[in-house]
Amino acid sequence: MEEPLRTPAASRCHMTEMVLPNDTNIRNTLFGGRLLSLMDKCAAISAMRHAGNLCVTAGIDSVDFWHPINLGDAVMLDAWVNRAFRTSLEVEVTVQTQNLASKELRHCNHAFFSFVSIDEDGMPKAVPAIHPQTEEEAERYKLAALRRELRLYQKGHIRLVDAKLIKEEIFAALAIKDFK
Amino acid sequence: MEEPLRTPAASRCHMTEMVLPNDTNIRNTLFGGRLLSLMDKCAAISAMRHAGNLCVTAGIDSVDFWHPINLGDAVMLDAWVNRAFRTSLEVEVTVQTQNLASKELRHCNHAFFSFVSIDEDGMPKAVPAIHPQTEEEAERYKLAALRRELRLYQKGHIRLVDAKLIKEEIFAALAIKDFK
Amino acid sequence: MEEPLRTPAASRCHMTEMVLPNDTNIRNTLFGGRLLSLMDKCAAISAMRHAGNLCVTAGIDSVDFWHPINLGDAVMLDAWVNRAFRTSLEVEVTVQTQNLASKELRHCNHAFFSFVSIDEDGMPKAVPAIHPQTEEEAERYKLAALRRELRLYQKGHIRLVDAKLIKEEIFAALAIKDFK
Amino acid sequence: MEEPLRTPAASRCHMTEMVLPNDTNIRNTLFGGRLLSLMDKCAAISAMRHAGNLCVTAGIDSVDFWHPINLGDAVMLDAWVNRAFRTSLEVEVTVQTQNLASKELRHCNHAFFSFVSIDEDGMPKAVPAIHPQTEEEAERYKLAALRRELRLYQKGHIRLVDAKLIKEEIFAALAIKDFK
Amino acid sequence: MEEPLRTPAASRCHMTEMVLPNDTNIRNTLFGGRLLSLMDKCAAISAMRHAGNLCVTAGIDSVDFWHPINLGDAVMLDAWVNRAFRTSLEVEVTVQTQNLASKELRHCNHAFFSFVSIDEDGMPKAVPAIHPQTEEEAERYKLAALRRELRLYQKGHIRLVDAKLIKEEIFAALAIKDFK
Amino acid sequence: MEEPLRTPAASRCHMTEMVLPNDTNIRNTLFGGRLLSLMDKCAAISAMRHAGNLCVTAGIDSVDFWHPINLGDAVMLDAWVNRAFRTSLEVEVTVQTQNLASKELRHCNHAFFSFVSIDEDGMPKAVPAIHPQTEEEAERYKLAALRRELRLYQKGHIRLVDAKLIKEEIFAALAIKDFK
Repeated sequence: MEEPLRTPAASRCHMTEMVLPNDTNIRNTLFGGRLLSLMDKCAAISAMRHAGNLCVTAGIDSVDFWHPINLGDAVMLDAWVNRAFRTSLEVEVTVQTQNLASKELRHCNHAFFSFVSIDEDGMPKAVPAIHPQTEEEAERYKLAALRRELRLYQKGHIRLVDAKLIKEEIFAALAIKDFK
Repeated sequence: MEEPLRTPAASRCHMTEMVLPNDTNIRNTLFGGRLLSLMDKCAAISAMRHAGNLCVTAGIDSVDFWHPINLGDAVMLDAWVNRAFRTSLEVEVTVQTQNLASKELRHCNHAFFSFVSIDEDGMPKAVPAIHPQTEEEAERYKLAALRRELRLYQKGHIRLVDAKLIKEEIFAALAIKDFK
Repeated sequence: MEEPLRTPAASRCHMTEMVLPNDTNIRNTLFGGRLLSLMDKCAAISAMRHAGNLCVTAGIDSVDFWHPINLGDAVMLDAWVNRAFRTSLEVEVTVQTQNLASKELRHCNHAFFSFVSIDEDGMPKAVPAIHPQTEEEAERYKLAALRRELRLYQKGHIRLVDAKLIKEEIFAALAIKDFK
Repeated sequence: MEEPLRTPAASRCHMTEMVLPNDTNIRNTLFGGRLLSLMDKCAAISAMRHAGNLCVTAGIDSVDFWHPINLGDAVMLDAWVNRAFRTSLEVEVTVQTQNLASKELRHCNHAFFSFVSIDEDGMPKAVPAIHPQTEEEAERYKLAALRRELRLYQKGHIRLVDAKLIKEEIFAALAIKDFK
Repeated sequence: MEEPLRTPAASRCHMTEMVLPNDTNIRNTLFGGRLLSLMDKCAAISAMRHAGNLCVTAGIDSVDFWHPINLGDAVMLDAWVNRAFRTSLEVEVTVQTQNLASKELRHCNHAFFSFVSIDEDGMPKAVPAIHPQTEEEAERYKLAALRRELRLYQKGHIRLVDAKLIKEEIFAALAIKDFK
Repeated sequence: MEEPLRTPAASRCHMTEMVLPNDTNIRNTLFGGRLLSLMDKCAAISAMRHAGNLCVTAGIDSVDFWHPINLGDAVMLDAWVNRAFRTSLEVEVTVQTQNLASKELRHCNHAFFSFVSIDEDGMPKAVPAIHPQTEEEAERYKLAALRRELRLYQKGHIRLVDAKLIKEEIFAALAIKDFK
């Protein structure tokens, strides 16, 4: 049997949770760390669904918490793989909450996780390529490369002068044409 | 603003979990009670999403566990409301598992939960009607009434001779036309 | 040393828990799923105490939740083996609660679990017979066979026309003497 | 209705637990702290069952852990009130374990907890007297007074010269008749 | 009594944890999400120790996970407040691990959290100023302002051309003197 | 490389926790058992940090709980090794709490744990000696021997007449010079 094409849709992971007393601080709102933990679990399942083997968290880009999430709210997480690099993957996670009485939905969080694919001996293992199917997926695939360059720069693995995609972005933002 | 029609689809709740060491027995398979607990949480969110207020578990029909679920497997739960009665609801839950390496999916569980809708004082509260939109949803809506009659009979709230829908089913199964 | 006769009493398992904040919903009553999980653990210990090896949950008959259980209440579970079949067992679990201030006891739940006995390789393993010692134990032993036939019928493993014990029960309930 | 006499038997609390992976260290034996926590919960339920209101742990006498308890073992705890003082109680807890395969039982732990009875405002509240019914219960009732004197001495609340019961014990042990 | 000066040292929070089976994936290394959750708790205690009231997580800057952390390792977290803004704070967290057999220490993680100080009604509340006492603390205090500008820019609250501190940094890195 | 001298300071373990809803009883104060469990974990890390291998709890001396600890309070634990015997260690743990609003600190608990050092086969394993560096550490080192004699006497391993250090203490307290 031929293996089906690996797509972002096939890597998708949906989770729903309800905020319980132990997940909250004394003002009855969800702890940030509890939410980060749910996001990491959802992203990890998505990464492993694509890679087909153990993937471990390598990092998370900056995250903002836009609204407090209340006791009793439903929390819906949605994760998918944006792009596979040689032995790593970028997974995007979005978080929505729902007040079950008013049914009101709120988009409340958004993050990019990096995972490394690991073999039996704990060594990095090649990840199969991912094939974007929609325009939106193609756009995410493209931007994932920029964010990766940014991470490498922030870790000091490349210099800013060598970071081609970042420089383009900065120059555009500052309307710099060239510099001397 | 007019409230949208309440449909089974609007009550749907998806959950994904990964089996961790503490969820398993000494042969590394998921505890039945842990799975029942996840199913109840998924069903409760679905019931509350329809009712718009607190719903408490009133009962669960018989459940079989078809396959052991292994450490590291993903567990996907899917719940929706089949029918709303006066102050109660029937919620159906299905459980699938996925081996993340082979990507093989297994349907492994299936249950019907009853919930009671509760107001601020803990008293039963009327539930809005549900409007099936597809043929499959209409069939589930119809069968939910039969299962409800069965539950009332099992609790001794009605007698078998008065259980119209159950008798029809039994007579059909035994090819009884009438009896003396 | 001769092994003592295996009796329902020898398989008995008592558990007491107190309802804590994280076990409850926003109206401070115990989650149904949390109770199902405690019942499964209590039943599993009873099954393994009889069988002497790992037993995994194969199913649970329908369960009703009669009363809400409040934060701070004590929950007492009591489980014992009703009957051992070839490689499976029926375990009965009862749940009582106690308000620790008023000392009032409430019987609030009752269920039948099926377990499968498992060997080192995860294959079904023969279970030693159980020897009822009291009249009540003998009655439970007898009824366990009827419930088992009911489960096999519900799973579609036997047809209703072949289910000897079920037909007797139905005919008695409907006062059918014979049918054409 | 006349209230029944409060006896040690009426305060009794039985708990059974199974040792799960998360309760154990890297050599697969139960953490001491996890066992202390179970013992405190069992003792607290027993104290509250006698007092009829919230009781908080005031202290625990020295405890020894005699045997390691293994992953998968059943742990049985049994607690009862030995004696009620003005606003406090002494609760005794014993711990047995059972290897579910061999059915071998081991007595493995034993402790005395002190609890303080607390009213709505968190202030100490009088505890009803307890009425020992058997010779064993009467002996425990008597020794509880000695242990209490010992605790008061250890906390520096009384001097050894004033600790009548302790001195008797020491003199007997050292075969001192009198001292100058 | 005069209140003591609020310093970074006074806000410091130390935590030590041991990696247990339930914190790990199937290769026995700590989940990223579990570590993020510990880091958030440690940072939150530090923030509240400075502010003297509830602080909720507003965001976390990008984090890298440098080494896998193994089952049984000790994890040491250390958090302190770098700078208080009007109603928010920047908290820095470092994570070290120790193999308890070899005693080898590894620095393995580092993050900046933002917290918002909240009053009784959940509204932002002014935070007292912090007074750096050492040269290192003064340097952190200074850099916290740059990181804050970066967060505001990333959230789209300020434009890059108005981000004075960021531009200085970029120009220095690219050796730009001026641009046209 | 020469191994550094093993000192009490090198064995030190600091932990900070915050009291969450699930850690508390219905009057919102921390459960005694939950605190004992934290103390055991903190002490165990300290013991293993000194011994360099697995150490299991052998016992705990009597503990008093002086003040209730409230929901939201920070709990700070501090543990260190007082003395290493042949295959066992005495670890001392102190517990302080802090109200994060008032910043008020309270010393609220204090205990001595005994641990046994264990090799790969679960057999007792020799523990390296500890070298007190300060006067306070030397005093603790000395008193640890007295407490050990007391434990041996309480377990019935030595007779009171043979317990040299205990007898000295008793005689001093009772002003006994000699006895006949």
